[in-house]
Amino acid sequence: MTTQTDGTTPPDMRRLCVHTMTVKRWSLAEAIEGFTAAGIPGITVWRQHLEPQGSDVSGRMLRDSGLRVASLCRGGFFPALTAADRAKAIGDNLRAIDEAAAIGAPLVVLVSGAVPGLPLDEARRQITDGIAAVVPHAEAAGVRLGIEPLHPMYAGDRCAINTLRQANDIAESLATPVVGVTVDVYHLWWDPDLESEIRRAGPRILSFHVCDWRCPTRDLLNDRGLMGEGCIPVRRIRRWVEETGYDGAIEVEIFSDELWAEDPRVLLDRIKTAYREFV
Amino acid sequence: MTTQTDGTTPPDMRRLCVHTMTVKRWSLAEAIEGFTAAGIPGITVWRQHLEPQGSDVSGRMLRDSGLRVASLCRGGFFPALTAADRAKAIGDNLRAIDEAAAIGAPLVVLVSGAVPGLPLDEARRQITDGIAAVVPHAEAAGVRLGIEPLHPMYAGDRCAINTLRQANDIAESLATPVVGVTVDVYHLWWDPDLESEIRRAGPRILSFHVCDWRCPTRDLLNDRGLMGEGCIPVRRIRRWVEETGYDGAIEVEIFSDELWAEDPRVLLDRIKTAYREFV
Repeated sequence: MTTQTDGTTPPDMRRLCVHTMTVKRWSLAEAIEGFTAAGIPGITVWRQHLEPQGSDVSGRMLRDSGLRVASLCRGGFFPALTAADRAKAIGDNLRAIDEAAAIGAPLVVLVSGAVPGLPLDEARRQITDGIAAVVPHAEAAGVRLGIEPLHPMYAGDRCAINTLRQANDIAESLATPVVGVTVDVYHLWWDPDLESEIRRAGPRILSFHVCDWRCPTRDLLNDRGLMGEGCIPVRRIRRWVEETGYDGAIEVEIFSDELWAEDPRVLLDRIKTAYREFV
Repeated sequence: MTTQTDGTTPPDMRRLCVHTMTVKRWSLAEAIEGFTAAGIPGITVWRQHLEPQGSDVSGRMLRDSGLRVASLCRGGFFPALTAADRAKAIGDNLRAIDEAAAIGAPLVVLVSGAVPGLPLDEARRQITDGIAAVVPHAEAAGVRLGIEPLHPMYAGDRCAINTLRQANDIAESLATPVVGVTVDVYHLWWDPDLESEIRRAGPRILSFHVCDWRCPTRDLLNDRGLMGEGCIPVRRIRRWVEETGYDGAIEVEIFSDELWAEDPRVLLDRIKTAYREFV
């Protein structure tokens, strides 16, 4: 739908990374086999794909595969109505950091969390406090934390950090190299300040997620499109991100009932084509 | 779901206004009769409710009813892929201004528009240009224009103005008292800059819309809640709006397949209760 004619060349295939959630029906073993067969060099692992065999076994499988692990998804979900639940969330994030270390993921992506009925300003304070509480463990483990702003349509119950400016503010205030931001075009493409906040983030950008925003979008959660199927200027945003010096993985993270219904091997082929044409 | 315990007293019932879209199945005549019977003093009229009898007849009906007309919904939809379509949109906005004058509405609410495939920065330029083009007609007609930012989830195909900051920027740049902003809690509640941008808008706030954000929200368009059914701190936002001096109508605008299925008379009673308890 979007014309991508700004002169930027397609990205190197060696930077392509696919999230296990994009091929959700596959186990980790199937994803490793499928990505390898398709020539997809990078993988971001969701915790539900670690669970069946645990992170130590998963780590061995991933090291043996030669795939490059971009991140572990996901930590976060810090705000809660009680101190006990907030402490529980911090414990879970400490575990996520350990799991990331175990599978060789340099990064845990943080979906910050939100609780219906908890005022957003309070949720935002609790998020900053929660991240601060796990920073020492992340530093010790050598694992970074990427604050991922989520689209404002998730502010009520999923993530109270809804713009890159907010994520930059938190990362700046914590002032440690282990805390940075994750830029996902799906969540941020609409923001009039996106270009300037990407520039401000600079080396703090720890990962970059792509997919597309379908017009119309039929579901708030599971109707993301393949790059090129919607209205996000993915290539233009990639250029902004690369102008900061970012040359890491480009991660395809798609939640879509429609695409999940496809054979994941066919989907991986479509992803490679969309990556070349629209990223 | 949200506790409203900030000490602000409920608003005067004389400020209550309901949109004809909230009782969408009713004709204008039925809405006038139903609002009058329910003791609802204000009405905002959607153009589809004017169409069957035209704006002159509608204007007589409304004047005879004694209801206070808060606004006409809606103008806007300025961006387009061709100059001819942009000119058509401007023509349509001139007609909306005439219709507002005919029904005694002091305000046309503008949903600015967006076109899939048209870059957002270009859409935003076309919106400013489009509003500028109709300002002289609005000034001559004595009708004001309220730029209504819509939630970022509508940036792709409905409205490229997604924050109050953007609306304030445009209104400020046009520098005429006929152009102001419409604050709708549904679209803006998530914005970390909302309080400061409401303060900045000051006397430029021309209207104020309320409803609620359901958690979870099941549909991007038609799943708004009655005030109190979701997670928006409506009362707190009302306080911010009133601190600017705003004492105009408080307009209940709800698109909801669930609530549209109810008997509109029952719905109006529920609206009055929710208005007292949660606005």
